[in-house]
Amino acid sequence: MQNIVEVVAEKYKSIKQPKPEFHVFFNDHVNNDFNILFRGIPPNSDYFAAGVPGSFYSRVLPKGSLHLAHCSYALHWLSQVPKEIQDKNSPAYNKGKIHYTGTEKYVVKAYFDQFQRDMDVFLTSRALELVGGGLLIIQMPGLPSGETMFTMTGAGLLHAILGSSLMELAKSGIISEESVDSFNLPQYHPSMEELGKVIERNNNFTVEKVGILNHPMKDLPFDVQRTSLQVRAVMDMILTEHFGEHILDQLFVIYTRKLQENYDVFDKQIRKDADFFLVLKRKFH
Amino acid sequence: MQNIVEVVAEKYKSIKQPKPEFHVFFNDHVNNDFNILFRGIPPNSDYFAAGVPGSFYSRVLPKGSLHLAHCSYALHWLSQVPKEIQDKNSPAYNKGKIHYTGTEKYVVKAYFDQFQRDMDVFLTSRALELVGGGLLIIQMPGLPSGETMFTMTGAGLLHAILGSSLMELAKSGIISEESVDSFNLPQYHPSMEELGKVIERNNNFTVEKVGILNHPMKDLPFDVQRTSLQVRAVMDMILTEHFGEHILDQLFVIYTRKLQENYDVFDKQIRKDADFFLVLKRKFH
Repeated sequence: MQNIVEVVAEKYKSIKQPKPEFHVFFNDHVNNDFNILFRGIPPNSDYFAAGVPGSFYSRVLPKGSLHLAHCSYALHWLSQVPKEIQDKNSPAYNKGKIHYTGTEKYVVKAYFDQFQRDMDVFLTSRALELVGGGLLIIQMPGLPSGETMFTMTGAGLLHAILGSSLMELAKSGIISEESVDSFNLPQYHPSMEELGKVIERNNNFTVEKVGILNHPMKDLPFDVQRTSLQVRAVMDMILTEHFGEHILDQLFVIYTRKLQENYDVFDKQIRKDADFFLVLKRKFH
Repeated sequence: MQNIVEVVAEKYKSIKQPKPEFHVFFNDHVNNDFNILFRGIPPNSDYFAAGVPGSFYSRVLPKGSLHLAHCSYALHWLSQVPKEIQDKNSPAYNKGKIHYTGTEKYVVKAYFDQFQRDMDVFLTSRALELVGGGLLIIQMPGLPSGETMFTMTGAGLLHAILGSSLMELAKSGIISEESVDSFNLPQYHPSMEELGKVIERNNNFTVEKVGILNHPMKDLPFDVQRTSLQVRAVMDMILTEHFGEHILDQLFVIYTRKLQENYDVFDKQIRKDADFFLVLKRKFH
């Protein structure tokens, strides 16, 4: 945020114009704790801050009111679990798993279709909010180039192990197998090619810049404890909602053990994770 | 809010223009619970909502970004207790009381001076945020016309009784007299004349409309229990910060008793309370 403000201020200085005022809108779900966010804003920040409640899979700002939108590690969360995944009569019914690994053709297709629909709504919403020529910056996890198997990425493997940990709990009789069958992660990690196609089809943006980000984490050895805690922090709410809070301690004991057992695979796999960086420009039509 | 949206939408309809989109900014202190606010916004409301953290005695929005500002029962809260009030060497030192009743010349003046400074900052901040011709609507409690004694209003009497209840606690040795001397309410209830003068001196607004609001409460008999609970809800935070939470129950037992003892006075007095309603228009300079 501060970077953008400084760059624009510098630009105005170079063309001898008075520095503009900046208005920053922080968007998140209604249930995000906006007070923590607001208390974290430096008191003498160079911008006016506002909190905007609501899903980004909808309009959250008036037409043409935005010059730059930034979406950081959020777009891999789908608006919902694809319906077919939970339909026992569908070929995409995802029994015994909580996500896709990459081999289940119908399951992956159901996830991808949901991703396409969601991205289309996201892009159209932002297109309406942005001025012509406005920028949309996206950072999100994706599938590495040339890879087809999601489990071959660190993220995919983490999901697969969370699924098998839940199945282990089910086999001990602590939760039912049905409750695992009906639990699915609303996430999709697209390939850059898939992302490009969705953006092209939506037709509101031109792609100005594309990159793969290098995370400093990738150069560190795999840390079992930290990873287990991080996954728990991210998945806490969604697991609690479906299974209840009482299973969490036990689940993450199993989960941590399984991470340890797969240490070598992870230590190689997480090097493959791809974080996409895209700069899109709103067309003037 | 809904009223304003409907009226403007109706206006656009009458001139055969498409309905504009509305952006509503809700401002409050950083520590206000914005999540409760956000959850209270109807999901299909006709406007986009945003929360704006920060004191209205400062800029909270970019220049010229606002068409209509509405400040509802908040402007009688000063930005701080006037310094002289707490200075033992000042003629305005407010020993044994927590507010002014209207007779203490220097105390009232210190409060009024603070009010003037605060209002000036408030008006200048809003003037910068509003477009030329934009409206500023103010609702606030004030001193009834022709009245000079604040204790002759319901609000003033409530404050006086809160002060004497604190002094009773001090006399029982539960809190120190010094702690009461150093506690003062950061509130000022101006007369319409004072308000007019401050607005004129600020010179950013013309007064379009002035009124005294009629509260339905005024026609009901004085309710001791309800009033005591309401005052406790409003003063809870400020009393807890200064005296600690442990005195509250005891304090409001005394307070309720004193309200009961003064029932007849209150029953007459609250009829005199004045709630001001002003519509100001941002000048084009």
